[in-house]
Amino acid sequence: MVSPTAILLISCPDQKGLVAKIANFIYANGGHIIHADQHTDFAAGLFLTRIEWQLDGFYLPRDLIAPAFNAIAQPLQAKWELHFSDTVRRIAIWISRQDHCLLDLIWRQRAKEFAAEIPVIISNHPDLQVVADQFDIDYCHISVTKENKQEQEAKQLELLEQYKIDLVVLAKYMQVLSEEFLTKFPQVINIHHSFLPAFIGANPYHKAFERGVKIIGATSHYVTANLDGGPIIEQDVVRVSHRDEVEDLVRKGKDLERIVLARAVRLHLQNRVLVYGNRTVVFG
Amino acid sequence: MVSPTAILLISCPDQKGLVAKIANFIYANGGHIIHADQHTDFAAGLFLTRIEWQLDGFYLPRDLIAPAFNAIAQPLQAKWELHFSDTVRRIAIWISRQDHCLLDLIWRQRAKEFAAEIPVIISNHPDLQVVADQFDIDYCHISVTKENKQEQEAKQLELLEQYKIDLVVLAKYMQVLSEEFLTKFPQVINIHHSFLPAFIGANPYHKAFERGVKIIGATSHYVTANLDGGPIIEQDVVRVSHRDEVEDLVRKGKDLERIVLARAVRLHLQNRVLVYGNRTVVFG
Amino acid sequence: MVSPTAILLISCPDQKGLVAKIANFIYANGGHIIHADQHTDFAAGLFLTRIEWQLDGFYLPRDLIAPAFNAIAQPLQAKWELHFSDTVRRIAIWISRQDHCLLDLIWRQRAKEFAAEIPVIISNHPDLQVVADQFDIDYCHISVTKENKQEQEAKQLELLEQYKIDLVVLAKYMQVLSEEFLTKFPQVINIHHSFLPAFIGANPYHKAFERGVKIIGATSHYVTANLDGGPIIEQDVVRVSHRDEVEDLVRKGKDLERIVLARAVRLHLQNRVLVYGNRTVVFG
Amino acid sequence: MVSPTAILLISCPDQKGLVAKIANFIYANGGHIIHADQHTDFAAGLFLTRIEWQLDGFYLPRDLIAPAFNAIAQPLQAKWELHFSDTVRRIAIWISRQDHCLLDLIWRQRAKEFAAEIPVIISNHPDLQVVADQFDIDYCHISVTKENKQEQEAKQLELLEQYKIDLVVLAKYMQVLSEEFLTKFPQVINIHHSFLPAFIGANPYHKAFERGVKIIGATSHYVTANLDGGPIIEQDVVRVSHRDEVEDLVRKGKDLERIVLARAVRLHLQNRVLVYGNRTVVFG
Repeated sequence: MVSPTAILLISCPDQKGLVAKIANFIYANGGHIIHADQHTDFAAGLFLTRIEWQLDGFYLPRDLIAPAFNAIAQPLQAKWELHFSDTVRRIAIWISRQDHCLLDLIWRQRAKEFAAEIPVIISNHPDLQVVADQFDIDYCHISVTKENKQEQEAKQLELLEQYKIDLVVLAKYMQVLSEEFLTKFPQVINIHHSFLPAFIGANPYHKAFERGVKIIGATSHYVTANLDGGPIIEQDVVRVSHRDEVEDLVRKGKDLERIVLARAVRLHLQNRVLVYGNRTVVFG
Repeated sequence: MVSPTAILLISCPDQKGLVAKIANFIYANGGHIIHADQHTDFAAGLFLTRIEWQLDGFYLPRDLIAPAFNAIAQPLQAKWELHFSDTVRRIAIWISRQDHCLLDLIWRQRAKEFAAEIPVIISNHPDLQVVADQFDIDYCHISVTKENKQEQEAKQLELLEQYKIDLVVLAKYMQVLSEEFLTKFPQVINIHHSFLPAFIGANPYHKAFERGVKIIGATSHYVTANLDGGPIIEQDVVRVSHRDEVEDLVRKGKDLERIVLARAVRLHLQNRVLVYGNRTVVFG
Repeated sequence: MVSPTAILLISCPDQKGLVAKIANFIYANGGHIIHADQHTDFAAGLFLTRIEWQLDGFYLPRDLIAPAFNAIAQPLQAKWELHFSDTVRRIAIWISRQDHCLLDLIWRQRAKEFAAEIPVIISNHPDLQVVADQFDIDYCHISVTKENKQEQEAKQLELLEQYKIDLVVLAKYMQVLSEEFLTKFPQVINIHHSFLPAFIGANPYHKAFERGVKIIGATSHYVTANLDGGPIIEQDVVRVSHRDEVEDLVRKGKDLERIVLARAVRLHLQNRVLVYGNRTVVFG
Repeated sequence: MVSPTAILLISCPDQKGLVAKIANFIYANGGHIIHADQHTDFAAGLFLTRIEWQLDGFYLPRDLIAPAFNAIAQPLQAKWELHFSDTVRRIAIWISRQDHCLLDLIWRQRAKEFAAEIPVIISNHPDLQVVADQFDIDYCHISVTKENKQEQEAKQLELLEQYKIDLVVLAKYMQVLSEEFLTKFPQVINIHHSFLPAFIGANPYHKAFERGVKIIGATSHYVTANLDGGPIIEQDVVRVSHRDEVEDLVRKGKDLERIVLARAVRLHLQNRVLVYGNRTVVFG
């Protein structure tokens, strides 16, 4: 599918006729739906949908789709987002000292597994400047301490603005973002190296080892002020045994982290994730 | 969701307006869609959908839905099936000597994991009569040899008619059904004890052991005249090691077989499987 | 392998010559080792091993093996257990209202997946008497409240003695055992319906649903006074999605619970589990 | 464990006293066993073991271990290999046009996930010279056609000798090696992008798509003259659905290929794989 598409992500109170109304809007304007998926959360009384159609042959120019759809959405009390498949979003990858998720994301971006630009890497350590250089990406070293956190976050926000960043990916960034930061820049995906909600916080592999678990996991989620408590996008696991020392858990975990984070970023960039409450609908 | 629903499974050549037309049909008749999922096979130029709506408040009585929808379906050259969620289908479980899949299906039916009646068990061996007695199910022993296969299949077909069977589940029935049989009664689900298409035919666990695989699987599929070649509904796998003898593969495989077959039967009974060509769309 | 075997499970401070000393003891007495596995926990400075040999041709009669081995074990400060493969242990299955784990264990025992007798089912509810009757197993209904817990536990202990029980399996028994009980009868295996240590305590599926996890799990562990905190024997997981309501998690979880508990019980009965600290070595 | 170890991989006809004899040899020479695992293949009457001990404090110098052990091995008709954990083996990575397995192996080697040198990349295409340059590895482009295969294999063998290569890793090298080549250089590990023995040969993802499987896999194995038929070291799988086009299978498969190949190479380098017949024992 090389021709560009439009994608609507919609959530609204459930009622009759929603699928018809949305489909009619697209059909009436000459749109060809290529993907439509819907979910009803009965407990919440909520209708959630993702609908994707080809822009070729669609009567409305791009800038008129949102206002036109708004006329339909408003009486339905719908929250919605409109995206175009050929939008190339700009990602800032945040890291500390570990390079595996960073390298993996860069490799996938170069391999065109997802469409995005990575203009900048932000780190609280100088170590991985060399990777940035190798791939011709800017590297901003902003060390963060308890004392300077507020001013450093101001600098980070400035950088995000300066680089016109759409999405921050915490690719093993071992610092907590403040609530203020997240209010100003809420589009942040994290990878946590445990099967959440087990082993929240620091040193999950050590804790997993001590607990003697037989399976370890990794979790990618949107970041909220609630530590490791944001809406989960993707998780995966791998079996371990008594033979695995902590460093084996770390090694096996790295493979999980790479894959789980990459899947989450890809799902987000393809506009397949709809957050409601503290949950996600992932239109796979 | 206790109120009954109608389900349409539709496949037709892809074109604009399909979602709108189908959704409008339901909305115009007062239907409340609670589940809609769609898939487009671009290579085949095919649109495939499953749409489910509540019958409470639907203006059309059940017997008029099919003729009414036909008026819409015909110009679209659509193939379609209409089902009602409160239809209790009648299953004949076919077995040979092993009881694990049989007991599992009976347990799930009693636990209401799926809505179905199991009025009869058909076997080419007399061994499991006792299970049938225990659960008050009729047991028909029809031994099959090369010589008598044709006449025995005639008897089997008679039984299916007599018991008003909707679905045959081959729950480790170690015989091949003839093409003639399948033409007369095509709704047959099988469990094959391998990760198809590996190890087609007899003794897959022995073959898996000899090949030294590190993972074994089970596959549930619709039966066609092509041995172990019908459309796959569900598969799953489990890890094995050099420590596993053939009997360990058999034991581990039994757990797979039970679960994979049960999932496939449940998906079928919930009208979530749409076959096209030799493939399935499983609306999960 | 039908001929009976002896199994030693040994843990002792690590030092040179341990494998040689133990193997020599067996060889010197004419034993043929058919399985030997060893693990060293370097952090704990601990050597752990499981060694199994054929009793046919072994010079020592069964009752002299333990005293003879003790002469070797004592200077090594070894903790050890001696088992014979043809010992048929007696299991009491404890349940509340759910039957799936109970039926599964009974089915596996009858299918000879493990060698054990199940002379009695103990329940805090009368509901499943009918299952006990069907399989000719005694059923003891002992209802437990906060007030009568102490005296009821006394009754339960009496029953365990009366039935000569070696192992208690909590097959979805929804009550906590007191520390006193566990001191008197420590061989208890539980199945917890979550991926521990996530969702300790009551209603793990509800909690998992609310947290919006993408994978659920089940954990079988030895019971200690620390709620859901005992040494883990086995865990497994299954993927879920936004489409799964709480009752779907429950249904999917049941399949996990059955399999994980059965694996743990089998490993225990085959003397493959060595507990040290709060961890297990599982000699697979 | 930083101190170097010696590893014996032994297979011999099963008989009494084998564990004792081998352990005594090590203990008598002052060795401290840190890992010992054993497997008996009863059908084949074969005893297989891996035993690892610390060289610190071992009385025998390295070059005398083999002759000393030979005196024990010969009367047992044992086949055996002796390895040292600090041996750094030299790998030649062979590729065609795809870079994902290559980059992954290089990353793991740099991250010290396994100890090896990668002095040369051999390819039948010139495309990935740039990767070699980036990591300062020699790149040899040897294009192979039906006509020149024999002489090109001669060149390849020369290169392996010149670079003192211990192990060839086919990291998506899309050519078949001749039986002559394998006779001269048998240490070759391949990654095949299917769950063998399903989809042997070319285009497994296309075949998997056409067959409509619900799970795809990858297999790493030693290469023999029997196409995709050599002893399997490791396999893994990932779930797919009707939504996955062939290119999605390729993308998901790449993650599998990277991980499965890396695991197999690591197991081999740690001397954990013992081949017998067409099977492997993997001492995990």
